[in-house]
Amino acid sequence: MTSLDEARRRDAADPLRAMRGEFDTPEGVIYLDGNSLGPPPRRALKRIERTAQEEWRKGLIRSWNDAGWIDLPKKAGAKIARLIGAEADEVIVCDSVSANIFKLASALLARKSGAALCVDETEFPTDQYVLEGLSRLTGATLRRLDDGGVPSNAVLVRSLVHYKSAEILDMAATEREAREKDCDIIWDLSHATGLVSIDVKRDSARFAVGCGYKFLNGGPGAPAFVYVARNQAEALAQPISGWMGHAAPFDFSARYAPVAGAARFAAGTPPILSLSALDAALDLFDGLDMSALEEKSRALGDFFLDCAKGPPLTPLPAPRRRGGHVCFSSENGYAIMQALIASGVIGDFRAPDLMRFGFSPLFNSYEDAFRAAETLRRILADGEWRAPQFAERRKVT
Amino acid sequence: MTSLDEARRRDAADPLRAMRGEFDTPEGVIYLDGNSLGPPPRRALKRIERTAQEEWRKGLIRSWNDAGWIDLPKKAGAKIARLIGAEADEVIVCDSVSANIFKLASALLARKSGAALCVDETEFPTDQYVLEGLSRLTGATLRRLDDGGVPSNAVLVRSLVHYKSAEILDMAATEREAREKDCDIIWDLSHATGLVSIDVKRDSARFAVGCGYKFLNGGPGAPAFVYVARNQAEALAQPISGWMGHAAPFDFSARYAPVAGAARFAAGTPPILSLSALDAALDLFDGLDMSALEEKSRALGDFFLDCAKGPPLTPLPAPRRRGGHVCFSSENGYAIMQALIASGVIGDFRAPDLMRFGFSPLFNSYEDAFRAAETLRRILADGEWRAPQFAERRKVT
Repeated sequence: MTSLDEARRRDAADPLRAMRGEFDTPEGVIYLDGNSLGPPPRRALKRIERTAQEEWRKGLIRSWNDAGWIDLPKKAGAKIARLIGAEADEVIVCDSVSANIFKLASALLARKSGAALCVDETEFPTDQYVLEGLSRLTGATLRRLDDGGVPSNAVLVRSLVHYKSAEILDMAATEREAREKDCDIIWDLSHATGLVSIDVKRDSARFAVGCGYKFLNGGPGAPAFVYVARNQAEALAQPISGWMGHAAPFDFSARYAPVAGAARFAAGTPPILSLSALDAALDLFDGLDMSALEEKSRALGDFFLDCAKGPPLTPLPAPRRRGGHVCFSSENGYAIMQALIASGVIGDFRAPDLMRFGFSPLFNSYEDAFRAAETLRRILADGEWRAPQFAERRKVT
Repeated sequence: MTSLDEARRRDAADPLRAMRGEFDTPEGVIYLDGNSLGPPPRRALKRIERTAQEEWRKGLIRSWNDAGWIDLPKKAGAKIARLIGAEADEVIVCDSVSANIFKLASALLARKSGAALCVDETEFPTDQYVLEGLSRLTGATLRRLDDGGVPSNAVLVRSLVHYKSAEILDMAATEREAREKDCDIIWDLSHATGLVSIDVKRDSARFAVGCGYKFLNGGPGAPAFVYVARNQAEALAQPISGWMGHAAPFDFSARYAPVAGAARFAAGTPPILSLSALDAALDLFDGLDMSALEEKSRALGDFFLDCAKGPPLTPLPAPRRRGGHVCFSSENGYAIMQALIASGVIGDFRAPDLMRFGFSPLFNSYEDAFRAAETLRRILADGEWRAPQFAERRKVT
């Protein structure tokens, strides 16, 4: 049996295969970048039209009440809460991952005397940058870690799924260690939510942020989220205390009084078009078993690695438990990825040398994985990637 | 001649009357709330469809380069710069007004030893709340002013157009006083941009924020903006130092290095659907004379006040120079406004007692002003507003 036959056999047996019909992806494209920007669910496209044409155009300002715009941050938050094992009122959708890390780290720092801010040297850059900014503003020490360990008396930002290695950390064990060391962990769930089976309650995780536009398919730059365990929220004061986190924003009181729960992490007026798309996209996960999604994503990645392997391709070392993407390192990675994209296989490049391929269990098939590997091997074999246009760096890689 | 005849005569003579055709507002509605949420320009609706259907659905991740998503914050910023007398690279579109005040005030505080944060007691609440949060985080003193004056050695947030009185401050005189007193002013241009003739260069204003969803018609919760004078930006480090403000975000360097100019005030990934709508809406202002817009808005408000005046209506005292809205105070303001909305005249209510009517020079007509006043007088004369359903408070007022 060829690999293509095997791919088709697996697709036919895949209990999630009907989900692909929920997306309207373009012909001739194998999309392996849902870990960077998820493609549009059909229901998100319909919702954008409704929000623009019905709610904004016809409803105008009335839609804040009549179309429920004012409740969308909580409503979308409750949908995300289900995906991470939290209660509905423990998650709020707002701002960006960067801003949310800032708010949460500030609030934790303020209640923790003498704590340092800590982050791994290999952590996603924006997480590091934001802690730099907070350290400069408050004078708190910023410690860069190089061993993936858990420090003492610290506010630590850590990704559950690493953006390069795709390793899924052991959340429960990390939290146990953190508790012993008086360390608060802010989990960055950006590369995990909508893909990994997460249970913050079971694993005693109390603080997290995450992204709306990757595996949640909420649209380009979709708003992010904040999770705060219910018994922690009341003790936390976040500094970007805008009116949307106020207990009664339309009383126009001159003094700030935070609303109960995680919702106090909201700040300014949310971008409703983007937020509506995310809210609609989240319904795709209704009734799905996150373990099955995680498992299928891993199987797709393994199948791709099997089909693609062999010199000169060097995959990153396999982590103990892997998230939704796989990487090959190559000094020619940028040009090879550009050649792949020109051939309709879309992954991304992460400096300095990684070609990254994401596998979404909702819309990717084993045949996608097979064909992507086949194209990659062809481009390497015939040296197509050496064409000069593929060397030219574009702004976003 | 009746007031209606007069309204029609003025509309016929209005050089801006063709602009109304750029909007597709619903039948049977007189919309006097563009100061809270502008209605959709037709071009913004088209752009939303293009961004969703073409750029997101077909272009997928490639649209960051191919559709220029990565440049939108600067591109939209340059369009706003023209409206306030700034250079193209002095304005960046990002985040919300609340977050932008936080970033700008933090950056100014950090370079100004011993400075206090200052804000008027009557300032728009979110501006006050954010300074409270920053004061709590940094220990900087927060001083509440009650006289509209300019304090010494301070970072002051002040609206150019007040959200209640609609008074337009004298920007040049206020800046002169501020310079003498070593005070940095962050102008909140939310109720001014797209309406008032602003010239930050002429008036020596160096810092500002503003809103995208009011007179700029960028859509519900459209991203906000930051203006920083070019000779100031390099000395400012803003603390929410996310990757979108980095000099080379896709180098994935572990250390933050801010990009040149106002663009360093960007933080996380921008909400592209909302940002695209704003970018398209801004083109409506191409070639318009802001003085003519400001003048028409004032004339519309005056005409409305003339048509509506008489007991029991009490307008707020007329400011020296007025922005785009007028207010009546009434202890029954909430119910009266609900009755007006039920009759198709949409304004808003600002606690505790103000009925607010906004006049946008782009889509409002003198006939709108006449008919709104007529409806208001009818509702008061026949006591329609006393119906119990109009007393029931809704979430957003």
